Amino acid sequence: MTQLDDLDRAIIRVLKQDARLTISQIAQKLDRPESTIHFRIKKLQEKGVIDRYTIVLGDSFRPRNLALVYIQAETPVIEEFLERYVRYVMRTLSMLPNVMAVARSGKDGVVALIGEDSPERLNRFIDETIRTLPTLKRVEVFELDEFAKGGDLAGFLVGV
Amino acid sequence: MTQLDDLDRAIIRVLKQDARLTISQIAQKLDRPESTIHFRIKKLQEKGVIDRYTIVLGDSFRPRNLALVYIQAETPVIEEFLERYVRYVMRTLSMLPNVMAVARSGKDGVVALIGEDSPERLNRFIDETIRTLPTLKRVEVFELDEFAKGGDLAGFLVGV
Repeated sequence: MTQLDDLDRAIIRVLKQDARLTISQIAQKLDRPESTIHFRIKKLQEKGVIDRYTIVLGDSFRPRNLALVYIQAETPVIEEFLERYVRYVMRTLSMLPNVMAVARSGKDGVVALIGEDSPERLNRFIDETIRTLPTLKRVEVFELDEFAKGGDLAGFLVGV
Repeated sequence: MTQLDDLDRAIIRVLKQDARLTISQIAQKLDRPESTIHFRIKKLQEKGVIDRYTIVLGDSFRPRNLALVYIQAETPVIEEFLERYVRYVMRTLSMLPNVMAVARSGKDGVVALIGEDSPERLNRFIDETIRTLPTLKRVEVFELDEFAKGGDLAGFLVGV
């Protein structure tokens, strides 16, 4: 694991907030020579600490209503079918534009982050697309109403 | 709501993948004049479609074990206490570095995304920090084992 010192961490924090800053602006902000900042950022990129640069979309393009859905599959008689079924659910959900993230949870579970523009559309999607999946044992819906941390995750995940 | 056309969407997709590309590189990629690309990006920024530029951290800085935890509070006799208690839980969790996102879920619930570097540490954190919170009615833990979509969300949320 790469060790970071205080300067590396400071640079990462600055870039997380605004990755458009120039080397010279970062140097000024952190009161270090430009050559040092340049070298450190180069190293952070080479070592893969900084994986990539990206954009976060603003409010008008973020879905207003988010929910996490946990889907648990019924365990079939033939266990291999469970594996295939869970993969099928993950793949199917991944292709939908209003499904922003999909992860496996244990042997028989899938968690998905759903984004819609009204509570009605969110509920309809869950009723019509999630609850109608065959052989489900359990569906749990957790609406995400207000973020105290990580609130711009929707602006990062949302597609256009 | 701002209307995007195909070119706007194409620019956003390119920048989401690599926000370090120059205007001239994007112009080449999308086979449009630089002046057009420049103007469009400026507009996207002004309208707040692009909220900010940021970095995504690489694998070595992402926690290896993620879990979503749903916490439901016991409804107290005096309803105002519930509101205060939920706010207290959200604030407390938000301050912890291994808690990557915190959202309210309904009147009495909180959802948190936890990141740790081993399943043991993850379980210990949930047992010692979450389950010991006073007056909980229900705690549900969903480990996130493998992403099919949105997998670099940890690299976006993780702090240093």
